[in-house]
Amino acid sequence: MQPDRSSEERMIDSTLRAWRFNADRIDKFFNALSPDQLEQEIATGRNRLIYLWGHIAAVNDGLFPLLGLGPKLYPEMDSMFITNPDRAAVIMYSAEQLKQAWSHINEKLLAGFSGWSPAEWLERHTAVSAEDFRREPHRNRFTVVLSRNTHMAYHFGQAILAKPRDLKL
Amino acid sequence: MQPDRSSEERMIDSTLRAWRFNADRIDKFFNALSPDQLEQEIATGRNRLIYLWGHIAAVNDGLFPLLGLGPKLYPEMDSMFITNPDRAAVIMYSAEQLKQAWSHINEKLLAGFSGWSPAEWLERHTAVSAEDFRREPHRNRFTVVLSRNTHMAYHFGQAILAKPRDLKL
Repeated sequence: MQPDRSSEERMIDSTLRAWRFNADRIDKFFNALSPDQLEQEIATGRNRLIYLWGHIAAVNDGLFPLLGLGPKLYPEMDSMFITNPDRAAVIMYSAEQLKQAWSHINEKLLAGFSGWSPAEWLERHTAVSAEDFRREPHRNRFTVVLSRNTHMAYHFGQAILAKPRDLKL
Repeated sequence: MQPDRSSEERMIDSTLRAWRFNADRIDKFFNALSPDQLEQEIATGRNRLIYLWGHIAAVNDGLFPLLGLGPKLYPEMDSMFITNPDRAAVIMYSAEQLKQAWSHINEKLLAGFSGWSPAEWLERHTAVSAEDFRREPHRNRFTVVLSRNTHMAYHFGQAILAKPRDLKL
């Protein structure tokens, strides 16, 4: 990093690091699990690991339209992992399909984030009107990315409860 | 918020909002629980709610020295909630003591955060030397606060698994 970066460029750098930190540990954890291990529940009667992984991926996929980066890559994940609770959806991705979707979503998201100038980071997200945004300028992309980053951490904290004993992270 | 705020001031505003969002939901959740409910485990044989609450509070207390805001307010919490696992510490706060410590820590932290200029947000944290910081300028207060914010969310995601059915959040 150049020492002459501006304050806002340094804050963006911190934000991208925080995002990658969570995305990387989630990636490492779930990719280390077998399809059988992904069927494990985080606690008796609660979500399975595969559902949590899919939920994180599907919510992240929603960032493309919300941040003006294009349509969702896998809109069918909504009914599998967001609008339906675990075990309710008729069709669900296999571990392999989910792995590919997760990777694709995260690579493309990071490429999108990395291309924004500071001013572009502070543009409104697409769920707020121009008029509301004038009154509430915090409803911008930067705020959304911070919020989705804590969403990842929230569910990763749950997933880790079902970590196999022999898995080293 | 004034529309003429600088980019870095707007990013700080987003960061403070993200922090308060997590601190507030943690505050609301744990304060709604009785001492008996705080004894509940998040899953069979795992941490109790009171331990998770104390752990979040104790780790946040560590931000005072790390961010150059002064000494820890409750250094005795380290052995209760960080260095020892749940049920191992000989002495542990009551629910009432923990509630007071948590509130005190968070109010004082937010007051500290709110007083920094953008340049002060980007100063090094106290666990990195001036020399290392020249090479790794991302090891600053802003990065630390983002990281601790995801730490709060990570454990709150676990705590919510033991939410009493009749508790409305």
